[in-house]
Amino acid sequence: MSVPVTATLDARPSAPKGLLAQLASIVGGYHVLSDPDLTAGHEVDWTGRFTGPTPVVVRPRNPHEVAAVLRACAQYRVPVIPQGGNTGLVGGGVPRQGEAVLSTTRLTDLEPVDRLSGQVTVGAGATLAAVQRHVREAGYDIAVDLAARDSATIGGMVATNAGGLRVLRWGPMRSQVVGVEAVLADGRVMNRLSGLPKDSSGYDLTQLLVGSEGTLAVITRVRLRLIPLFTDRVTVLLALQDTATALRVLALVRGSVPSLDSAEITYADGVALVHKHLRLPSPFRTPTPYPVHLLLECAAQRDPADDLIEALERSPDLLDSAIATDEPSRRALWAHREGHTDAVNAAGVPLKLDVAVPLEELAAFEQEVRGLTVRHAPGARLVLFGHLAEGNYHVNILDAGDRDEELSEAVLRAVARRGGTISAEHGIGVAKARWLSLTRAAVDLDLAAVTKRAWDPEALLNPGVLFSADPA
Amino acid sequence: MSVPVTATLDARPSAPKGLLAQLASIVGGYHVLSDPDLTAGHEVDWTGRFTGPTPVVVRPRNPHEVAAVLRACAQYRVPVIPQGGNTGLVGGGVPRQGEAVLSTTRLTDLEPVDRLSGQVTVGAGATLAAVQRHVREAGYDIAVDLAARDSATIGGMVATNAGGLRVLRWGPMRSQVVGVEAVLADGRVMNRLSGLPKDSSGYDLTQLLVGSEGTLAVITRVRLRLIPLFTDRVTVLLALQDTATALRVLALVRGSVPSLDSAEITYADGVALVHKHLRLPSPFRTPTPYPVHLLLECAAQRDPADDLIEALERSPDLLDSAIATDEPSRRALWAHREGHTDAVNAAGVPLKLDVAVPLEELAAFEQEVRGLTVRHAPGARLVLFGHLAEGNYHVNILDAGDRDEELSEAVLRAVARRGGTISAEHGIGVAKARWLSLTRAAVDLDLAAVTKRAWDPEALLNPGVLFSADPA
Repeated sequence: MSVPVTATLDARPSAPKGLLAQLASIVGGYHVLSDPDLTAGHEVDWTGRFTGPTPVVVRPRNPHEVAAVLRACAQYRVPVIPQGGNTGLVGGGVPRQGEAVLSTTRLTDLEPVDRLSGQVTVGAGATLAAVQRHVREAGYDIAVDLAARDSATIGGMVATNAGGLRVLRWGPMRSQVVGVEAVLADGRVMNRLSGLPKDSSGYDLTQLLVGSEGTLAVITRVRLRLIPLFTDRVTVLLALQDTATALRVLALVRGSVPSLDSAEITYADGVALVHKHLRLPSPFRTPTPYPVHLLLECAAQRDPADDLIEALERSPDLLDSAIATDEPSRRALWAHREGHTDAVNAAGVPLKLDVAVPLEELAAFEQEVRGLTVRHAPGARLVLFGHLAEGNYHVNILDAGDRDEELSEAVLRAVARRGGTISAEHGIGVAKARWLSLTRAAVDLDLAAVTKRAWDPEALLNPGVLFSADPA
Repeated sequence: MSVPVTATLDARPSAPKGLLAQLASIVGGYHVLSDPDLTAGHEVDWTGRFTGPTPVVVRPRNPHEVAAVLRACAQYRVPVIPQGGNTGLVGGGVPRQGEAVLSTTRLTDLEPVDRLSGQVTVGAGATLAAVQRHVREAGYDIAVDLAARDSATIGGMVATNAGGLRVLRWGPMRSQVVGVEAVLADGRVMNRLSGLPKDSSGYDLTQLLVGSEGTLAVITRVRLRLIPLFTDRVTVLLALQDTATALRVLALVRGSVPSLDSAEITYADGVALVHKHLRLPSPFRTPTPYPVHLLLECAAQRDPADDLIEALERSPDLLDSAIATDEPSRRALWAHREGHTDAVNAAGVPLKLDVAVPLEELAAFEQEVRGLTVRHAPGARLVLFGHLAEGNYHVNILDAGDRDEELSEAVLRAVARRGGTISAEHGIGVAKARWLSLTRAAVDLDLAAVTKRAWDPEALLNPGVLFSADPA
């Protein structure tokens, strides 16, 4: 797909004068940023790995303004990058070569919780944390939770089908989305916010947009199913010998404790990095480092601790354990897991790959990734952590030097050989587009391409994302 | 969309000789039916309302044969109607004017239950009942259940996003489908059966096929998530004054009994018809007919009866009630609900509309439908029943005479005005295609049309379904 661009790589791109004036008339001049000092924050992702210049960042306040902005950009044939909280890891939300950036961060309206249906409609630019506060006031919760909750926007989470900490019980973002409103590249608005739990009238265009990474339409509002707000939570941190043991413990707990919400796995190297970065004490009685930590959390309307403890008492494999039920103690246990991202980033600019393999492959895959790291980038530091129940590792590699590309390819090929996915959570973006053919057959890639062309015939939305001219 | 047909309406259609020979070479002559005596059963739906001639019914045994059959039909430009158990109500699975019928009923392979993932892969032609038996032997269940379980095929249930009796707890078929294998009109095979619970790598083509009614591809295999097999069930049948009361009782139970599986509503007229047809005694102490019956069922791994009874004791609105925990007594209570379809069919050829409205509209909608029936078809008999939690009524009208079309339109317009859907369960088919514009905006219809053209550019798959040249 060829994309008309207004920029060259030699100089900062500039937008057509008429477009800037038109955008200012739509959203107000204050929300049309073209000064490089103001656009800079929108031109790089938070890992620092993906960056590109933009001639203009535009911040519409409501879906009508989004529609008008897209119509104007289409008129000038300026491609558009939709950008939410900019917490992605695959370069799907930053400009590449002079596209306009449509920032959704002002689409923050929160409609009242609908108690009859147990649903809520929110603006795409609302952060997860803002939506959590909003629905919890009404006695509900949103099922998806993730560490970037203060920055990640609902629209971005829908566009990438975010996963996070509770997929094992509630499914990913896809399972929470009962409707969307979205604007097409030509400015037409598609509204599917009725929230009917049963509706079999034509293609489910809502679900097609979940995970479409801004390549088909710009999501402006989202209708979410809500879950009960659980008042009782219990968190345990277990010290274990290896990944296989962690899987056994998980299977045992999962089979008998329906309130199990999270199962997070971390390893000694990452835990040591977190302890150093956050100056955390060991959660266990002895300061001995253990090979594997498994954090389990249950949530229920009546205290779920007894069920969990009963299940764990049947497990012969625990080297050590810590349990917490009050909020501060639970937070302290979670810090050992949630501190990983910051601790890794503080130690350098990591290569980050978010992948999943079938559970029966996970233990062997862990060993394979360790071997591949040593082989392709001796001296690099591998930090693995992730969501055990989905076989989903966040692969972080520090100090890989110029071996990033080579190592990425080796890891992703290993994932593909084991029947896994090269992206479990963050999407394909530009980072993985050329490797999508490792796990998607030619017919799948062709169907995606014809669908993209049908929805966005001028290829104006998020060019370069998902589709690569250079398959591996 | 224009469709090349090989038939005229004056005579029985005939298939190109070369095609018949080619089909026989693929599936064996025994499974290529062209004798009208043999094709007759495939040319009419079970309501008797939709019928059309076909030159050939072909019954492939496996996905490879399906692919070869579709390649052959594409070569001769003969359009194809995919047909499963033929339990649809909207004419989406029977020929219209000379298309070939691809019967999926021999695609019955059941793969072993995968205990690690709690999933199973089954052939599209397997009946729901066959899959239920298969997974229950392994200690699992499939979340969707419906009265037509002995005939309805999994492929048809996916293609129409079937709902049924347990949507309130587990969601519709869409929520159960973790992957599909499907064959495109040109014979290419799309395989998405990996079953990974998290996978954010490109458009979710699986979900696009759920509810696509055979217009994008022929589904050949389905991977389903399974749920625990609950050993303890409790069923109550409540006699109530009206729909508003039923909604209040449901809200009360739903808020406090998480094991609630089903909530089915019926009315005096339908119950009387069932009692007469099945010679059932009243389930209550007195034979007085009550205006509304509400059937509730809970399922759990520990006896859920106490929870349910405790909740109902707080409800002041019960005129009468019956409770059952053992299988025969539970079946007896269910017969009052499940007997409706047969009892109605025994009384005539009903006009059947499957619709849903938001819960806050349901009680008023019930009254409106009663009024519309009297106004448009005096003397007609209205039988309403359905799935209360989704505001989903099966509208059955007997003896409407020549007012069918007029009455359909009046009811569907009422649904649309109240923010509902003109199809909650069975899809749009040919029956409702011209009314889809009542609830779908022009942009939605256009997006569906361009998606259809992208996937099936020759318009060979299920022509006439979903898309109408004659919008209301």
